[in-house]
Amino acid sequence: MTAPTADGRPLLAQAVERCCAAEGSAPITREDAEVVARLLKAVADPVRLQILGVVRCSPQQEVCACDLPAPLGLAQPTVSHHLKVLVDAGLLTRERRGQWAWFTLVPERLALVRRALEV
Amino acid sequence: MTAPTADGRPLLAQAVERCCAAEGSAPITREDAEVVARLLKAVADPVRLQILGVVRCSPQQEVCACDLPAPLGLAQPTVSHHLKVLVDAGLLTRERRGQWAWFTLVPERLALVRRALEV
Repeated sequence: MTAPTADGRPLLAQAVERCCAAEGSAPITREDAEVVARLLKAVADPVRLQILGVVRCSPQQEVCACDLPAPLGLAQPTVSHHLKVLVDAGLLTRERRGQWAWFTLVPERLALVRRALEV
Repeated sequence: MTAPTADGRPLLAQAVERCCAAEGSAPITREDAEVVARLLKAVADPVRLQILGVVRCSPQQEVCACDLPAPLGLAQPTVSHHLKVLVDAGLLTRERRGQWAWFTLVPERLALVRRALEV
């Protein structure tokens, strides 16, 4: 089993099946658990949860970076830092339009985080 | 809206509904996002994901602390540290039986983490 991919395979759920067939071993390898943990860490932050919420309820689930500081009460550099973490985790995609960057939600990726927790 | 409770209300999903009715504000308050983030951080660790997997596939979804070091390849104090984090987050309950502590999964709590990500 490798990194969680867009096919949305429930890593831990699969691992549990394996474990139940082979007692005495951990149901998910350390390597796989580290992949899932990295994805969870990307969303385990209050500002990033707020950003995901704002993007989710925006038209076409996309938002201009310029529209985020006001509702979040944060400075642009702080917002940009958190946007980068979400993009690096594959939870948002980034596209430059003129002088601003726009960010679009990748709902499948967020669904993958949920499925990884289906133990 | 307060902390996520056992009734499993989807914090972010509810927040998005509010946001879509009131544009220009963050869909989840910083305070609520901090509660969800704390819960996510508790599971965003490879060892703790492995522990949750082992407990899940054990009979009655419970495990003796003495049975965890071997499959995880870790020392007892390390395992105990991670068990405490999971208990503090409400993802496991702890019960002493004789000289050992037993830990039982709280699947509703893990489901709550998933629902908090339903944006």
